Amino acid sequence: MTTSEGATRVPVGESGLDPRIAARLKRDRDGLIAAIVQQHDTGEVLMLAWMDDEALHRTLTTGRGTYWSRSRQEYWVKGETSGHAQWVKSVALDCDADVVLVKVDQAGGACHTGARTCFDADVLECHVA
Amino acid sequence: MTTSEGATRVPVGESGLDPRIAARLKRDRDGLIAAIVQQHDTGEVLMLAWMDDEALHRTLTTGRGTYWSRSRQEYWVKGETSGHAQWVKSVALDCDADVVLVKVDQAGGACHTGARTCFDADVLECHVA
Repeated sequence: MTTSEGATRVPVGESGLDPRIAARLKRDRDGLIAAIVQQHDTGEVLMLAWMDDEALHRTLTTGRGTYWSRSRQEYWVKGETSGHAQWVKSVALDCDADVVLVKVDQAGGACHTGARTCFDADVLECHVA
Repeated sequence: MTTSEGATRVPVGESGLDPRIAARLKRDRDGLIAAIVQQHDTGEVLMLAWMDDEALHRTLTTGRGTYWSRSRQEYWVKGETSGHAQWVKSVALDCDADVVLVKVDQAGGACHTGARTCFDADVLECHVA
């Protein structure tokens, strides 16, 4: 799918990620942190994806939202095939250093279904007692 | 910490969660889905937490953000000890059914550090080529 980005996972120690950042990350057992992606101006939460050190490095240095696909086991640059690119505005690490909030300018729909966000279709009913 | 909520994990099949919702969830290998928590009016992303079926059930039926603590291995109701409650406005399931977006009215700081959000303290430098 995104052959230019490669399906070969870059080991943590070989990533170009700033070592001062890498030293702080609390990765899960698969070596990943969660990435919440938010439209920078409207505040819409667009999607949740996953990053290893190299995906975070690429996101910080290319300005394009870049993730590790757990299902396809490869790097993917959002919009590379769909054209729905994510232009990165800021990246913030959370208090536990296992989640980043990526604020972006999203072109078109962020969801693979074509919807603007991955949360548009399925609001669950709340029955507050 | 939250003894009234219990440290005993409720098995999936014994949760009170609506079976039509439970049938759709794609839980991780620990039986959990991610919960992105957002302030409903300002759009601030407050925190990321985790839910099993029972935590989602309690969130949907009590109107209070309720999660499963991976570190303490117990249910916790946000604000029960801090007073910084999350009053639930809506819950939406994402396209892959493994993440919920919980829109809340957050009293005070959402972060255990006292900050308004868990993403306030640590913005990473972007060096776009």
